[in-house]
Amino acid sequence: MIRIMKYGEVSNDEIFDRAMPTVNVTDKVAEIIRSVRERGDEALLEYTEKYDGAKLESVLVTPEEMEEALTQITPEFMAILEKAAANIRKFHSRQVRNSFIINDEPGVVMGQKVIPVDRAGIYVPGGTAPLSSTVLMDVIPAKIAGVKEVVLTTPPGKDGKINAAILAAAKVAGADRIVKAGGAQAIAALAYGTESVPKTDKIVGPGNAFVAEAKRQVYGVVSIDMIAGPSEILVAADGKSNPAYLAADLLSQAEHDKVASAVLVTDSMELAEKVRDELEKQIPQLDRAEIARISIDNNGKIIVADDLRTVIDIANEIAPEHLELCVDNPFDWLDSIRHAGSVFLGRNCPEALGDYLAGPNHTLPTQGTAKFSSPLSVDDFVKKTQYTYFTRDALAAVAEDVAAFARMEGLTGHARSAVIRTMESEA
Amino acid sequence: MIRIMKYGEVSNDEIFDRAMPTVNVTDKVAEIIRSVRERGDEALLEYTEKYDGAKLESVLVTPEEMEEALTQITPEFMAILEKAAANIRKFHSRQVRNSFIINDEPGVVMGQKVIPVDRAGIYVPGGTAPLSSTVLMDVIPAKIAGVKEVVLTTPPGKDGKINAAILAAAKVAGADRIVKAGGAQAIAALAYGTESVPKTDKIVGPGNAFVAEAKRQVYGVVSIDMIAGPSEILVAADGKSNPAYLAADLLSQAEHDKVASAVLVTDSMELAEKVRDELEKQIPQLDRAEIARISIDNNGKIIVADDLRTVIDIANEIAPEHLELCVDNPFDWLDSIRHAGSVFLGRNCPEALGDYLAGPNHTLPTQGTAKFSSPLSVDDFVKKTQYTYFTRDALAAVAEDVAAFARMEGLTGHARSAVIRTMESEA
Repeated sequence: MIRIMKYGEVSNDEIFDRAMPTVNVTDKVAEIIRSVRERGDEALLEYTEKYDGAKLESVLVTPEEMEEALTQITPEFMAILEKAAANIRKFHSRQVRNSFIINDEPGVVMGQKVIPVDRAGIYVPGGTAPLSSTVLMDVIPAKIAGVKEVVLTTPPGKDGKINAAILAAAKVAGADRIVKAGGAQAIAALAYGTESVPKTDKIVGPGNAFVAEAKRQVYGVVSIDMIAGPSEILVAADGKSNPAYLAADLLSQAEHDKVASAVLVTDSMELAEKVRDELEKQIPQLDRAEIARISIDNNGKIIVADDLRTVIDIANEIAPEHLELCVDNPFDWLDSIRHAGSVFLGRNCPEALGDYLAGPNHTLPTQGTAKFSSPLSVDDFVKKTQYTYFTRDALAAVAEDVAAFARMEGLTGHARSAVIRTMESEA
Repeated sequence: MIRIMKYGEVSNDEIFDRAMPTVNVTDKVAEIIRSVRERGDEALLEYTEKYDGAKLESVLVTPEEMEEALTQITPEFMAILEKAAANIRKFHSRQVRNSFIINDEPGVVMGQKVIPVDRAGIYVPGGTAPLSSTVLMDVIPAKIAGVKEVVLTTPPGKDGKINAAILAAAKVAGADRIVKAGGAQAIAALAYGTESVPKTDKIVGPGNAFVAEAKRQVYGVVSIDMIAGPSEILVAADGKSNPAYLAADLLSQAEHDKVASAVLVTDSMELAEKVRDELEKQIPQLDRAEIARISIDNNGKIIVADDLRTVIDIANEIAPEHLELCVDNPFDWLDSIRHAGSVFLGRNCPEALGDYLAGPNHTLPTQGTAKFSSPLSVDDFVKKTQYTYFTRDALAAVAEDVAAFARMEGLTGHARSAVIRTMESEA
């Protein structure tokens, strides 16, 4: 059963500490990365046989496999994929940034150019749930950013095939190459390249402990989005909320994973108790009841605070991946919400809406990293370059200042390079 | 003497490989971080005595120390600091992003808010060169981003004092708190907080191997800008360039550090040889001749290619921190430059101009990471939050699609939370 705590009556650690799953796979992952770096496709195929039980001839999905997969998708589901993709495109298109130029002094031109990375790698987990929504959420921003080649990698089933819904989503989103590999070996291939997998510049997407550790180890060789922890929801709700709705929302997170966390923060003890009872009623009705039960009992919390202001303060301190704000006028509080990955406002906005269809991204900062990290966006697939142009006269006007500054720092070579062009005769 | 290589006649490794200094300080840094985390200021003071030779009573710079430092700065240098700060502010103000809102369907409001991090930590190296320019470059973007508290940390001298020029720059830039600490211990304090140093959310700034390793180890607990490698310049120049200017520019980089790298890529063997001779002539004239000599001999390269197009291709593959493009019409080539931290266009734009005064940032991606990383900017000090609002009718219109998508992924709890609000009677 979920635990109810009164804020101020338990220690702050009990309110704010997160279960941080620690699996030490550092050495194993280092070994996998080394092998893939040294032996390329050969190592990739070996690991796929070992970990996924699939004996493959090639690590790449063929056009024929894609065609076959598409025949297995109903027109109805295809339409939902297209609708979700259209919403995701609409939202993410607004993230596209312009380059800028500054040219308000004679002979001085400066600016910043926004340039997509050459290649992006998208990791999509395998396992029991085929996350075709993650395919859309991670590939579409890369394509909107203008990335020429988007490489998607996901582990195959024992039959050597990729789930048809994943392939259909990859088609809709516009992935350019699909690799049948999972775990640390897939991340290694994206970071260093193999015969079949091109080296990419940015690797994004959620994954298990092996994937997270591999991303940590290749960080610097390539860019990564984040090290994702277990999924989280924080529902902030007033006493007028419907307990059945809130319980359903908490369980939508809890069913993900035994280590997922679902937290309700409210100003009403009455609601707290009703939601607790609703959870007990609803858990047995879930297909994934066993997972949800463990998640709720181990990581679930109901925190009761004195007023809504304190509820919001607690939410900011926790900085959850998903934040639902179930109150009458949610926009009244929007300016107070500082730290959360994705915010769902009002009584009619369950997180599931954002997981699939609304348009904002569902790859989000976990473990309190929303204090400094952002949802996956077009920004993840671009980088900026500055440029500066001065005419000889413009340089002459500032060269002595530059040289004086450089000398102050003891860097006379810098000083010399600033003045040499205007000291001597013109080139 | 610098080495001249003909592109195509030597191996690609000789052209593209970088000297990657590897100092293994992992365990030492882990120990320092652990100590500061456990013992706070006490540990910080101990390490400062041990590594910087300064016995301090407090780790914070007092208002009296700031006042005293300002009396040591000439009005002329203060004016240069102010001028540089104004240029940096002007450039970085253009990086400020607006939040956006999408509201083109009935009952649906979505958007993205841009929010500054609560606190930022800026590391400024100590040592022989007091990098007051780095203070301006790293503090100003944080303040423009709207960060409420910017904490600057830099190691004191043996006398327990911070260089006056550093303090003056901190004043001009608007740093809110100045900490006398360097190395891994300073990074640990910024990541975890001590009695005197508040925990920050983002740590930026260059440093030695200890600082780089400490940033790597606290990555995830806080955000970091990048793991900086040795400084680099690549000068791309045509045969009409003035060899004396180019040699001065190469040396402005080489004087930084024995591991700094200075590379000239040109389509003219004649220029290559002249620059080589100029380097030999100019090195002895430098105050830091010994450092420059080692840098040029060990890491310097002159690469001669057949034409300018190939010169640009080589520059993109190397993706240098600083790129000078010394040709007649540099804007003709701007679209071809894809990977570089900061680009200096034309014959009158030495890198030193950008190091101090022009306005673009000088904290830049090194070691080829310009392929996926950006100059330090206002973006480093903000994060984004998404929000979504649906009315009950808007939810009802899509709930079945959301549920169908969720069921396809095997997540029936998600499906239930999408439909429960519109299935049952209104709350």
